[in-house]
Amino acid sequence: MKATSPLSRVSVVLVRTSHPGNIGAAARAMRTMGLADLVLVAPRHFPHPEATALAAGASGVLEDARVVDTLAEALADRVLAVGFSARLRDLSHAPRDWREEAPGALAATADGPVALVFGNETSGLANDELLACQRHARIPADPAYPSLNLAAAVQVACYELALAAAAFPMPARARREAATGADLEALHARLREALEASGFLDPREPGRLDERMRRLAARLDLEKEEVALLHGMLGALSPRR
Amino acid sequence: MKATSPLSRVSVVLVRTSHPGNIGAAARAMRTMGLADLVLVAPRHFPHPEATALAAGASGVLEDARVVDTLAEALADRVLAVGFSARLRDLSHAPRDWREEAPGALAATADGPVALVFGNETSGLANDELLACQRHARIPADPAYPSLNLAAAVQVACYELALAAAAFPMPARARREAATGADLEALHARLREALEASGFLDPREPGRLDERMRRLAARLDLEKEEVALLHGMLGALSPRR
Repeated sequence: MKATSPLSRVSVVLVRTSHPGNIGAAARAMRTMGLADLVLVAPRHFPHPEATALAAGASGVLEDARVVDTLAEALADRVLAVGFSARLRDLSHAPRDWREEAPGALAATADGPVALVFGNETSGLANDELLACQRHARIPADPAYPSLNLAAAVQVACYELALAAAAFPMPARARREAATGADLEALHARLREALEASGFLDPREPGRLDERMRRLAARLDLEKEEVALLHGMLGALSPRR
Repeated sequence: MKATSPLSRVSVVLVRTSHPGNIGAAARAMRTMGLADLVLVAPRHFPHPEATALAAGASGVLEDARVVDTLAEALADRVLAVGFSARLRDLSHAPRDWREEAPGALAATADGPVALVFGNETSGLANDELLACQRHARIPADPAYPSLNLAAAVQVACYELALAAAAFPMPARARREAATGADLEALHARLREALEASGFLDPREPGRLDERMRRLAARLDLEKEEVALLHGMLGALSPRR
């Protein structure tokens, strides 16, 4: 990881969290997505063994967490605070979907540190807490039961941000040696020959067999090694002449 | 929710889950994203009070869950099984990022039911379990600590699928009555007048004040009601002539 990753400039702020287990699980969620800066505003219990247990390998995030009394303190040095809200209170100030907002939040890290703010498990962010945030974001969810667990919401929020940052691309896979057109033609010829020799295919009445086998083979996206394997199998299965 | 939602044709299959709390939390995660079909392959403890507690409002998902002995049973009627894997075993069969795979999995629901398969908390999916899946997916994560909690992985997986299905769009927001160009011009004129009357602005030496105020106002994306409010404030603040 580059020290200059924009994710290192994003903190997660948990406001008035009731259950210490959620703090630990949120720390773990952050860590899996490359975030490390946790701020706790007036947590009910912290530190707490349950938080430590659920943080698993992310205990460092808990150890470095800052505990403050007010949201204003947590946001004092932030150039942008995004408040997460599941409920749609005042529709004229409705939150926008986080997937739309995440790239902007990421871009804001060029100006200074950014905060993602999550409210209490039961009541969410209070109105005055939401007003302290410049942006409101929503994680799309089933209106019949939109109640994501706090740490699950943190997981999704950090995941979106990590993907917006393209922070963890797939490692390059071992280069595969793909079969060429000539490999495939040779395989089809071998198959036809074997099927004719076996009597399965009548060369005077081929029907659509060739077409169907070609459609099948096209979907296989074969490697050279697999073509060789199939040649071998066809050879072994073919009736001896 | 439409009864025909493709999400209703996707099951989550948890294989050899150790901790019943994770089963409950996974059920909750599914429910928030509109999935309801949970299959448990040889869970260590189920049913279990901890599962029920962590399912919160999604206890119905647990009550309807099917428990089977083998992964083959769970997948017998599925047209597609996607195995989730954090580790990059054999790079020639590396999983692809779930965001890329999710639309294809969703499309497959047109052919029949689909399964998302998650392994044991500690060991993940065994090789033979992965081989029973036609696709392998990965949730991008920090290589330094890629260890998402099981329910957190289920949350992200279902979230991606729900977004691929555009299942839960933002409800239409109250129509805002945006300010027009004429509204803004009138506001700028009023501001200029007030500032001149107050002596803050010398009309012979206006400098760049007008430009700066226009840039500010442009960012505000004002509503008609807000323009009226600002007019009122300017009127009250202006020195009486």
